[in-house]
Amino acid sequence: MNKDIPDIVIGRLPVYLRELNQMANSEGLVTTSSQELGRRLDISSAQIRKDLSHFGEFGKQGTGYHISYLIDQLELILHLTTTWNVAVIGAGYLGHALVNYRGFQRRGFVVKCLFDIDQQKIGTEMGRLVVQHLDELEASIHQNDVQMAILACPPNVAQDVTDRLVEAGVKSLLSYVPGHLNVQDGVQVSYSDPVIQMQRMTYYLEPG
Amino acid sequence: MNKDIPDIVIGRLPVYLRELNQMANSEGLVTTSSQELGRRLDISSAQIRKDLSHFGEFGKQGTGYHISYLIDQLELILHLTTTWNVAVIGAGYLGHALVNYRGFQRRGFVVKCLFDIDQQKIGTEMGRLVVQHLDELEASIHQNDVQMAILACPPNVAQDVTDRLVEAGVKSLLSYVPGHLNVQDGVQVSYSDPVIQMQRMTYYLEPG
Repeated sequence: MNKDIPDIVIGRLPVYLRELNQMANSEGLVTTSSQELGRRLDISSAQIRKDLSHFGEFGKQGTGYHISYLIDQLELILHLTTTWNVAVIGAGYLGHALVNYRGFQRRGFVVKCLFDIDQQKIGTEMGRLVVQHLDELEASIHQNDVQMAILACPPNVAQDVTDRLVEAGVKSLLSYVPGHLNVQDGVQVSYSDPVIQMQRMTYYLEPG
Repeated sequence: MNKDIPDIVIGRLPVYLRELNQMANSEGLVTTSSQELGRRLDISSAQIRKDLSHFGEFGKQGTGYHISYLIDQLELILHLTTTWNVAVIGAGYLGHALVNYRGFQRRGFVVKCLFDIDQQKIGTEMGRLVVQHLDELEASIHQNDVQMAILACPPNVAQDVTDRLVEAGVKSLLSYVPGHLNVQDGVQVSYSDPVIQMQRMTYYLEPG
C-alpha cells in the first residue's frame, strides 16, 4: 500500500463501492467476482483486479470476493468509516435539491448547515435545516465540525466563498458553480457542471 | 484532424471554452496565451497547446490566441454552432433546479420538455415548461427534436427510462441517478453523482 496511487484509480473505488452496496443491500448477494462487477459497470475485470491490488488482496482465485468484506475494506480505504460533515453554500433551487437529497447520509455525509444571503430565505427551514446568513459561515463551520463544502452559489461570489471556506479549514469542495476556483495546495476541488459534461458529448454527435 | 483523439482531451475543450468565454464576455479581453489560460485553469501551457494541436493551428508563437477566433473554433469542434434540444426526466427538486438553470441556453442547450409520473405535478408549470406525463416521452421527443436527455428520476426507474430514451433516438444522456446504466454502443452516458465525487476526496482527508 502507498499514497502514490493514481487519482483515477481512487476515482473508481467509490463506483465499485456503490455497486457492491447495490448488490448486497438491494439484491441480497453475498459474493461476487471481478468479472461480474466488471460486467455490471462496463469496466474490464483486469482493471478492477489491478485497481484493488494497490490496496491488498481482497478475493480468492476461483471464489471471488465476499461483498460485505470488500465493502468494509473500501470504506476503510476511502475514510468512510466515520461520517463527514458538509456545508452547502446557496439555498437556491440546487441548494434545495442538495439538502433534500437522501443519498448523502446513507453514504457517509451529513449536510450540517446551509447558507445564503437572501433575507427572505434566512431563518426558513429547508430539508430539516434552517438557512443561515453567510456571515455565520466561519462560526458555523467550526461549531459543526464541517470538513467539506458544496458550492451552489452564484459564480460572482464563488471564489470569495471558497477563500473563506478554505481559511475556515475546509479541505474539500464540490463546486456546482461554472468556472475554475483557485485554492492552495492540499485543498481539493471537484467540479460538477452539466454543460461541460454535455459539451463533451456533443463532440461525438452529428450536428443537426 | 481525426476522430481518434483521446476522450480526456475532448473533455478539456469545454473547460477551455468556458474560460475563454469568461475572458471575452466578462472581462473584455481580446487575446490570450496558453500560459495565461493554463495559469487560470491550473493546467500546464504545454498540455493546452498539445490538446489544441490535435485540431489545427489556432495561435501564433509570440502573439498567442485571438480569443473570439478560438471560441469559434472550439464551438465548431464541439458541435455547438447549433443548439441541442434536451429532455429532463424527473420534476423533483433536482429537475426543478435543472429547468431553472439559465446556464444551458447561453451555452448551447435548450431544455424542451420535462417529464414526471406524479399526477400532482403533471400540467403544472416549472421553469417555463409544463410538466408532462412520462407516457408522452416518445411523442414529445420526436415532436421537439430532442437529441439529449438529463436523468433526474428515482434509481429504480432509471434503466427503464434510459431504454425508452435510447429507443426514441436519444444518443447522449447525463445521469444524476446513482448507479450504472446499460446502453448500446454508440450511446454515451455521462454521470454526475455528488457522493462519488466526495468519496474520491475523502480518500485524501485525515479521518476524524
